[in-house]
Amino acid sequence: MAINDLSKDLAPISSNTMADIVEIKLREYLKKKSFRPGDALPKELELAEALGISRNVLREALSRLRMLGMIETKKKRGMILARPDILGSFERVLDPLIIDNNTLQDIFELRLVLEMGLADLLYIRKTDKDVEELENIAKKEAKLDESFRIKSEIAFHGKLYDMTGNDTLKRFQIMLMPIFDYVLTQEKKPIRGKVNHMDLVQILKTGTKEDFKIGMQAHLQPHFDRINKIKTNK
Amino acid sequence: MAINDLSKDLAPISSNTMADIVEIKLREYLKKKSFRPGDALPKELELAEALGISRNVLREALSRLRMLGMIETKKKRGMILARPDILGSFERVLDPLIIDNNTLQDIFELRLVLEMGLADLLYIRKTDKDVEELENIAKKEAKLDESFRIKSEIAFHGKLYDMTGNDTLKRFQIMLMPIFDYVLTQEKKPIRGKVNHMDLVQILKTGTKEDFKIGMQAHLQPHFDRINKIKTNK
Repeated sequence: MAINDLSKDLAPISSNTMADIVEIKLREYLKKKSFRPGDALPKELELAEALGISRNVLREALSRLRMLGMIETKKKRGMILARPDILGSFERVLDPLIIDNNTLQDIFELRLVLEMGLADLLYIRKTDKDVEELENIAKKEAKLDESFRIKSEIAFHGKLYDMTGNDTLKRFQIMLMPIFDYVLTQEKKPIRGKVNHMDLVQILKTGTKEDFKIGMQAHLQPHFDRINKIKTNK
Repeated sequence: MAINDLSKDLAPISSNTMADIVEIKLREYLKKKSFRPGDALPKELELAEALGISRNVLREALSRLRMLGMIETKKKRGMILARPDILGSFERVLDPLIIDNNTLQDIFELRLVLEMGLADLLYIRKTDKDVEELENIAKKEAKLDESFRIKSEIAFHGKLYDMTGNDTLKRFQIMLMPIFDYVLTQEKKPIRGKVNHMDLVQILKTGTKEDFKIGMQAHLQPHFDRINKIKTNK
């Protein structure tokens, strides 16, 4: 390695790097001491002294944990360990404009995988009222202009996730939706499977879980065909 | 509302709240100006002046965006908009010890949904070499002690995700694994489906996608039975 690589390899330690280190140290500390949600943390001054760092750097690291929802400041009790919102920070970076194309394709596929796997939970938790609401969405859709296609897609598939009774899954799909839309709007013309939304509603009404799996597969088939084509072209 | 609620309702504006506001303002600014990954951002001093805030508060907000991987500091070019690692921050909060039980159950179900939905991608992308590696994992497993069960579960199901050729999906399952383990170790005795790992390998070798879906369903059935039981008991 040449000498003049030195400045590249030995970048000065920035306050940001310090915040990274302190953030990791704080996490390790919380784990080692078995802090549980609701437990009060030591005061800032004590933490800064124990870590041998300035309060400014400590505050930067604490601010990060606060952003992730890992700590909260309560009146009178001071800082406590909180139950983080596990999807909150994920949401912050999920923007189609700043995600590279490979990851966009990955997320598109992730959503297809989720959709193909929903049937079992759906058939455990769906209610007649749910299916009725889903039917209403599919009925309205038939009368809509093509420009409302994506809105209705969101409503229909969103309701399916809703029917699984799993809040994390539902929020996750809401977050993934802009990515899905983004990929869909890149298409020249909309691709449609042989089974449409109304067909899926009918299956949920009178069909078995196995029927629904076959129906959903046919509904999403054009997307899998495209993935298969990309693979063959590689 | 009683007067003495006032101090509760009107909490003083902390520097943390300011960092929240500035973080949102910066995001809006980056979006409005259509910054793309790689674009250089204005200097700290200019940003602080434009937002009418102190550099300390600005730095706290920038540190958060840096933690999310949204901005990077490059030698000579200064701060640039980066491609964030979309799963990085999610990973930071995904710890079974600080997640509440409802969310744990949600994530457990999310992983079941993913597993049930893998077949289509698997059958598009699996190779003979993949199936051979999977078989080796399943073969070793038969000779292992019960205490290695979870390790082998990780290896087998991890390989399945690997075979989908989707990096995001694979990283996602690696992140969800500790949660899955945590829920599994809460069981009194391990529950096993009628179809085991070796059976799944045989299906991948000679069976169709539909066979695999039925096989995976039978493999995971005990988990769905338990979910069904929880629902009935409610």
